[in-house]
Amino acid sequence: MSKSTGLNAIEMQCLRQSFGLTVAQVASITNTTEEAVNAWESGETEAPVPVQKKLLEIDDIIEMQVLNTTDGIEELFKKEPKRRLAFVVYPTQAVYNMYNPEFLSSLPLTELYNTAAWRIKKECKLVLEVDVSLVPLDAEAYKAYRADNGLSESRESRAKWAATQL
Amino acid sequence: MSKSTGLNAIEMQCLRQSFGLTVAQVASITNTTEEAVNAWESGETEAPVPVQKKLLEIDDIIEMQVLNTTDGIEELFKKEPKRRLAFVVYPTQAVYNMYNPEFLSSLPLTELYNTAAWRIKKECKLVLEVDVSLVPLDAEAYKAYRADNGLSESRESRAKWAATQL
Repeated sequence: MSKSTGLNAIEMQCLRQSFGLTVAQVASITNTTEEAVNAWESGETEAPVPVQKKLLEIDDIIEMQVLNTTDGIEELFKKEPKRRLAFVVYPTQAVYNMYNPEFLSSLPLTELYNTAAWRIKKECKLVLEVDVSLVPLDAEAYKAYRADNGLSESRESRAKWAATQL
Repeated sequence: MSKSTGLNAIEMQCLRQSFGLTVAQVASITNTTEEAVNAWESGETEAPVPVQKKLLEIDDIIEMQVLNTTDGIEELFKKEPKRRLAFVVYPTQAVYNMYNPEFLSSLPLTELYNTAAWRIKKECKLVLEVDVSLVPLDAEAYKAYRADNGLSESRESRAKWAATQL
């Protein structure tokens, strides 16, 4: 998305909703208030340029994540028959903070990661004809699975656990 | 999206949020209750297959709308220099019902049309490098514009009015 063309009220609202975020959540990640967000979305005031940039950057990060992950999945299926895939998501902010901290600076809320995951699911279906299921991490079940299989905590172990949930 | 693979709780929520719809709105377009929608999204019950199909069909309709409109805009700019474009959206359900009735059967809520418009804006920027602005129809201003210019009501007249708002 352009960084030079300003977003109007309806566009600010569409952008927030496309992320699956509430007004309060957008206020929080842009360091402002719910009143301010409501004012942008009703056209009372214009959203400050740095806020617009920040939100458009998040959209870019999500789209990049979608591209990279879809490319990775395409690579994975070059020699294998296509099958269902599990993609781990995080049911609460606390679980997201604990298990996915490397994303906190770019996608600070678990809802933003869910949005990326949903777009990945759509893209994989459309472009690769691969079914991706979003699997919320069940921290207790995952710990038990690791103990049973002698696995340490890692992205790979989470993916293995998630595959057992399909 | 697949019609054979069922959507789980988090996926039902992601799908609703990707449309920019509230729980009440999804209940309304799927002829069910808010309690039922909340139950699908919390994993208490599974969303009925016809409901999943209906919502995935709406997503397909939106994506088709995005493809067709983006193709149309690409065609438009084959011989002209690229410029900013206005895309009319409808600020309330009443205005949507009055001016855009041909979409009511496929995209019954104005928010769904907004979602399509937002995705068109993104796609045009990314693929065509064309800036599209979403312009909410101001029914009074549009009527005055038509009177001033001797135009009858049509999609084309709306587009002409919207272009004056850029």
